[in-house]
Amino acid sequence: MEERLKKQIEFILEIDKEKNIFRQTHLSDHGRNENDAEHAWHMAIMAYLLREYANEPVDIARVMIMCLIHDVVEIDAGDTYAYDTAALATQKVREDAAKERIYSLLPEDQKEDLGAIFDEFEENKTPEARFAHAMDNLQPLLLNDSNGGDDWREHQVTAVQVYGRQSKTRVGSQRLFDLVDALIQENIKKGNIRG
Amino acid sequence: MEERLKKQIEFILEIDKEKNIFRQTHLSDHGRNENDAEHAWHMAIMAYLLREYANEPVDIARVMIMCLIHDVVEIDAGDTYAYDTAALATQKVREDAAKERIYSLLPEDQKEDLGAIFDEFEENKTPEARFAHAMDNLQPLLLNDSNGGDDWREHQVTAVQVYGRQSKTRVGSQRLFDLVDALIQENIKKGNIRG
Repeated sequence: MEERLKKQIEFILEIDKEKNIFRQTHLSDHGRNENDAEHAWHMAIMAYLLREYANEPVDIARVMIMCLIHDVVEIDAGDTYAYDTAALATQKVREDAAKERIYSLLPEDQKEDLGAIFDEFEENKTPEARFAHAMDNLQPLLLNDSNGGDDWREHQVTAVQVYGRQSKTRVGSQRLFDLVDALIQENIKKGNIRG
Repeated sequence: MEERLKKQIEFILEIDKEKNIFRQTHLSDHGRNENDAEHAWHMAIMAYLLREYANEPVDIARVMIMCLIHDVVEIDAGDTYAYDTAALATQKVREDAAKERIYSLLPEDQKEDLGAIFDEFEENKTPEARFAHAMDNLQPLLLNDSNGGDDWREHQVTAVQVYGRQSKTRVGSQRLFDLVDALIQENIKKGNIRG
């Protein structure tokens, strides 16, 4: 096998490990914890279906690949729970090292391409990154709401924390933030999110 | 919530169930069975990374969404193992009914759009569908090969069966079929696939 294809296949087998990185979010119907690959799959389909609500026009292929690969670094760095302050403090250092190791498996041009897509997501300055972030926040919120807010209650999450995280959703999609806002308000009323 | 967005969210929550449809293929490192959502996620990233090997130029956004949604029907119809002749005989009827129920959750225009993408995949007549099929076949083969051919041995799969299925890979990508061919030959030599 020539070197280029060999490197691509190595990367493809490496990212299989993302299916074993589990998140705090549970699947609908009070299911098991979700893993990163499932989360990314769900986000990419949501991006395609909900693109009409993006605040700015987006290149949907770029949003989809961004959604699909944004958590690859967690193979090494692990999942950082959105409301875990201690872990959040070291997240960038851990993820940068992971990015270097994992994307270096690819041929140089594709390492650069995927690295740039990952950085674009993290920097959150383009319409594509902003919409991908809206998906990253909306997806677990929908699952959590469908499960009667179990995950919020378990972690005693507060309204300030949820709104803090969802502030990025508004920047990507005002319309979807309105939905998020309504769902948060309902869950505060029900006592699932601490007011 | 207005009707259109409500329907989109209903569909998004419905397809969460795809994460519980398990396949015969096992994750690398002799892991557990893979589910449909993970398989689709992996295929879509592979399509993006390997698109240079498609026999014909492809619209990569269309290939990716095709990969992501092609197994949604299995929420109702279940996974049909590639070498299960009895199940294959009823597959189309089961999947057509599933397609109607599940895609009908969407607004009419998106039901048509996703239905057309699913049909295009099934009919396998466009460059996008042919390349998506190559991913659908290559992805489990890579995992299976990485696991020393456990899945082939367990099901006593023959070379005729594997080549039969992989004939679609050649139509999507001659270069990737050459890789597949080499891997099959190795696994025949090792006794993982029956000659």
